[in-house]
Amino acid sequence: MNRAELIQQIAQKQSYLCVGLDCDIQRLPPAVRAEADPIFAFNRAIIDATKDHCVAYKPNIAFYEAQGAAGWEALAKTLDYIPDTHFTIADAKRGDIGNTSRLYAKAFFETLDFDAVTVAPYMGEDSVAPFLEFTNKWVILLALTSNRGSQDFQMAVQPNGQPLYEKVMRRAMAWGSPDNLMFVVGATHPEKFGEIRQIAPDHFLLVPGIGAQGGDLAGVARHGLNTDTGLLVNSSRGIIYAGGEGEDFALRAGQAAHDLQQRMAASLSTVS
Amino acid sequence: MNRAELIQQIAQKQSYLCVGLDCDIQRLPPAVRAEADPIFAFNRAIIDATKDHCVAYKPNIAFYEAQGAAGWEALAKTLDYIPDTHFTIADAKRGDIGNTSRLYAKAFFETLDFDAVTVAPYMGEDSVAPFLEFTNKWVILLALTSNRGSQDFQMAVQPNGQPLYEKVMRRAMAWGSPDNLMFVVGATHPEKFGEIRQIAPDHFLLVPGIGAQGGDLAGVARHGLNTDTGLLVNSSRGIIYAGGEGEDFALRAGQAAHDLQQRMAASLSTVS
Repeated sequence: MNRAELIQQIAQKQSYLCVGLDCDIQRLPPAVRAEADPIFAFNRAIIDATKDHCVAYKPNIAFYEAQGAAGWEALAKTLDYIPDTHFTIADAKRGDIGNTSRLYAKAFFETLDFDAVTVAPYMGEDSVAPFLEFTNKWVILLALTSNRGSQDFQMAVQPNGQPLYEKVMRRAMAWGSPDNLMFVVGATHPEKFGEIRQIAPDHFLLVPGIGAQGGDLAGVARHGLNTDTGLLVNSSRGIIYAGGEGEDFALRAGQAAHDLQQRMAASLSTVS
Repeated sequence: MNRAELIQQIAQKQSYLCVGLDCDIQRLPPAVRAEADPIFAFNRAIIDATKDHCVAYKPNIAFYEAQGAAGWEALAKTLDYIPDTHFTIADAKRGDIGNTSRLYAKAFFETLDFDAVTVAPYMGEDSVAPFLEFTNKWVILLALTSNRGSQDFQMAVQPNGQPLYEKVMRRAMAWGSPDNLMFVVGATHPEKFGEIRQIAPDHFLLVPGIGAQGGDLAGVARHGLNTDTGLLVNSSRGIIYAGGEGEDFALRAGQAAHDLQQRMAASLSTVS
């Protein structure tokens, strides 16, 4: 999916919601556990219930890899089931030397057909560049993540006074463009969104950390929205486990997604 | 495998060689391609031919993931086939927020039964710590990688004059010990091994980058060996493709591994 199509989807649905399909096999409702492929059965129900309220889905690959080959099959089936109207993100945080990153890109863009993959920057340009060589595919590079450990290295002030994540963003903006490169910026740092919009006014930001991690949607929207929206805000646990292990888990997930969509629609009306 | 057992294996074989099982499906000999599971068939032949000369095997997970569920099955079969006497490393370069890193740890230490996994440091302590909670399992943290992109961020000088990779090492040494934490240091930076041994005198270093990437074994050994050896030097393409696509590929791989082992034995005699 290209940038114009993504922006059109956001405008049409009045939503910049990404639903995180981070299906923990320990937390599935009993009825789903009895299915032949419980992870896929759960995801299918969640997708049916949320697809009208969101523009993107983001499976975190760890939840599938932990199940071995069966998990990989559930991931492929899930991806096939997501409607073509939705932007798909493999949250994989990969990155390796050039010839190996090329294989990861192949895994997520060819073997599977994701629109985007999250990539870790530590290994530098030749670890990121192979993911940028695919037409209408996206790198979403880790910049400032939502977790406590973001303090350890990402926030480390460099000799020019900038934090490391700013160096990462500025450097990466020479490798890709707003048409194939986004950045991960956690909602747990709402005070940083103003500065980040000065560094990268046009790039989309993928924003995890609202809901279970405590981030604040209103603050993110106020400082992060640009005229093309420029945000994909993710909620995983806050949506998919909204109903716990109850029989009505899908209904409750749909309601949680709808609630977020309504708040997003209100925020969009303030910038358009 | 614990540290004492690893050191014992090195002493017994007079080798600190790790063989990288980075099997590119495009480069398999014709006889192997005809097998039901070509990747596993190739790995089995390589393991048979090299096991007497090396102490560790390191599949890079990208090569398996690029084949989807079938690749994951080939990886599991390969791991089962490696003798218990050998240290096994999942070269995965994973790292995510805490609850997600825990699932990656489960994927590589429980669903599969690797001894070690490579981890990327960018997301900080809570992304690394879950991998350190398993008994007799190891984190091998990226410090200074072998690729050109290591210049972009890893070598970036911090306000105290240290490069970022040194900050990463010093910080991580508070999270793990020489009994469960190693560092990746590329052989393409032989001039750095002296400094790195001052930072981390006791930790094992996993050293990629000899062979195809141009690193220098003699320089690495001279500055990197400690009294417990403290090195695992990896060769992937230089061993597994030593015979190209010829019928004698396994024989040639065994010879390449033997040649490296002989050079390693000579280097060990200089420190013991």
